[in-house]
Amino acid sequence: MLLYTCQTAPSPRRVRMFLAEKGLEVPMQEVDLRSGEHFSEAFRCKNPYGTVPVLELDDGTCIADSEAICTYFEALHPKPALMGTDARGQALIRAADRWVELDGYLAVMEAFRNKLPGFKDRALPGPHPVPQIEALVERGTQRYRNFLSDLDARLEGQEFVAGATFSVADITALVTLDFAARALHIEPDETLPNARRWYQAVSARPSAMA
Amino acid sequence: MLLYTCQTAPSPRRVRMFLAEKGLEVPMQEVDLRSGEHFSEAFRCKNPYGTVPVLELDDGTCIADSEAICTYFEALHPKPALMGTDARGQALIRAADRWVELDGYLAVMEAFRNKLPGFKDRALPGPHPVPQIEALVERGTQRYRNFLSDLDARLEGQEFVAGATFSVADITALVTLDFAARALHIEPDETLPNARRWYQAVSARPSAMA
Repeated sequence: MLLYTCQTAPSPRRVRMFLAEKGLEVPMQEVDLRSGEHFSEAFRCKNPYGTVPVLELDDGTCIADSEAICTYFEALHPKPALMGTDARGQALIRAADRWVELDGYLAVMEAFRNKLPGFKDRALPGPHPVPQIEALVERGTQRYRNFLSDLDARLEGQEFVAGATFSVADITALVTLDFAARALHIEPDETLPNARRWYQAVSARPSAMA
Repeated sequence: MLLYTCQTAPSPRRVRMFLAEKGLEVPMQEVDLRSGEHFSEAFRCKNPYGTVPVLELDDGTCIADSEAICTYFEALHPKPALMGTDARGQALIRAADRWVELDGYLAVMEAFRNKLPGFKDRALPGPHPVPQIEALVERGTQRYRNFLSDLDARLEGQEFVAGATFSVADITALVTLDFAARALHIEPDETLPNARRWYQAVSARPSAMA
């Protein structure tokens, strides 16, 4: 088993933090996104989509999606549970995780990828060229600010993103907030005390170093 | 238990088709999206996001996300399995389903919601206004054409979207293709024989009537 990852990209960090919370160690290989290694023929054989992370199993199967890789390890190593332990819990965590990804993570990415010259014609991930649209920089930034405000409201009266228990939704959210701090220079300010309290607490977990 | 749904919207159809494949009957209540019932105070108490589907459990818990509702029923009624039966299968189906949603479903929605006058300032779902951007009509349409071409390539040599077995990824894909046919007037043509073969076969399943 081999996990293809990249230290500076947010999506593979979701998997590394998930593994750290589980106490699992998996052999990893760094993919150099700056030199375009993810678009090389060798890497495209593993993932035609040209993205990291990819988990290559011993039978050659490649799982090329961060959430799917987490699903794999959750099934093999159910404890500590990060995706819920019963139908209701699984559903609520999945809903929360998808909300973070669709409203938070994709918003940051929209602002980031439509702005940076290095992402010309790669405004979305994948094998097809997607031109940058200037108006999406502002839209993505505004969507992300709305997300932070909704996150703050959600964390009023509950400790974690999906409720009383730490879950994969907190991992997706931490990776999103850290990337936004770096890429958009936006962090939850003092008008968002619940989001700040949560951000500090989750950042202090040892897994956040992954 | 009560499922809030809407006959004309694609997202609740994912849940209805999922339930039909499981052979489950759940009480349903229609929400009138045309009159804006999903933005009423009564409905916002169930889902502040203002979207359908919502599954209300007997304890009052509301699960407000199509995939999360499917996750709930898969956990309670594992057979027939629509989300995989082992770690590898679960991961591959989840990766395929997410690919269909991110590349296919969201592309159709991008073209549709940025075009229709009725979606002015609602180019994305949720409680916050999002202005329409004309360039996204063309971008969404092109992304959807790319998705159909990738779907055709994927279905070369495998019967269903995630492999040899029918899964939730086929449901997401059928709902996407049917909505694109209606909203964008795009269907897989004779240059995409694998996608056409799959589309006809999955459309013929009794659950497609749901």
